[in-house]
Amino acid sequence: MDPKRPHDHIGMEVISAAECDDLLSSAPIGRIAYLSDGEPVILPVNYGWHQGSVVFRSAIGSKLDAAIRHVPMAFEIDSWEPGHHRGWSVLVRGTATEVVESSEVEELEKLGLVSWVGELDRWIRIRPDEITGRRID
Amino acid sequence: MDPKRPHDHIGMEVISAAECDDLLSSAPIGRIAYLSDGEPVILPVNYGWHQGSVVFRSAIGSKLDAAIRHVPMAFEIDSWEPGHHRGWSVLVRGTATEVVESSEVEELEKLGLVSWVGELDRWIRIRPDEITGRRID
Repeated sequence: MDPKRPHDHIGMEVISAAECDDLLSSAPIGRIAYLSDGEPVILPVNYGWHQGSVVFRSAIGSKLDAAIRHVPMAFEIDSWEPGHHRGWSVLVRGTATEVVESSEVEELEKLGLVSWVGELDRWIRIRPDEITGRRID
Repeated sequence: MDPKRPHDHIGMEVISAAECDDLLSSAPIGRIAYLSDGEPVILPVNYGWHQGSVVFRSAIGSKLDAAIRHVPMAFEIDSWEPGHHRGWSVLVRGTATEVVESSEVEELEKLGLVSWVGELDRWIRIRPDEITGRRID
């Protein structure tokens, strides 16, 4: 633990906004949490970090698709070394919206975000209200 | 993709209940999702898999502590090989309750679940209503 860096009340290092941005730019996979039938679910997504927001694809007509427009959504990335009790996580809290503007969709297509499974036709963007990161080292 | 195994409507392999159980027994870190101020958050936890439910520690008086008793909670583990677009995830949906029975706490202490950070005094158990797993290969 580096005492020069800020820590929270339970002793975890607070990751700076700039570093949260770097981590969000480089992780390939994250997880979204949203309410489905009034209860939280967590789903992995491969995503992009585009102009300060999380973007990912969703399938038309899926349960996810029905649940995620204009709703509060959380997004998380993390990395751990269990043997050393070390790791970090970044949490994005915001609102999910579908990207419908064709010029914006065109721009997102250029990100090269390849669907790992099936046809995912919609683009969803989570605009962050809050981004926080913590590290244990 | 092994066509002999069951797949869902978007082509992901459905992981059997027995294998979900195995994966939940062996992962060191998972993530919980719950509502905080009415909006979903995701938090990494090191956890144990005990008699068919997820157990982890929480700090007295934390935001988490206030939010998670007798509420719907999701828990997720996953593992990915981004270079190969391969991976799996297991999702547990259930209800979080604090473990207060001293004999039960005593039993959980024997799991050897070490806190990675600070003093985490409470034991929380998520009793699953549903466990589902998916694999992309």
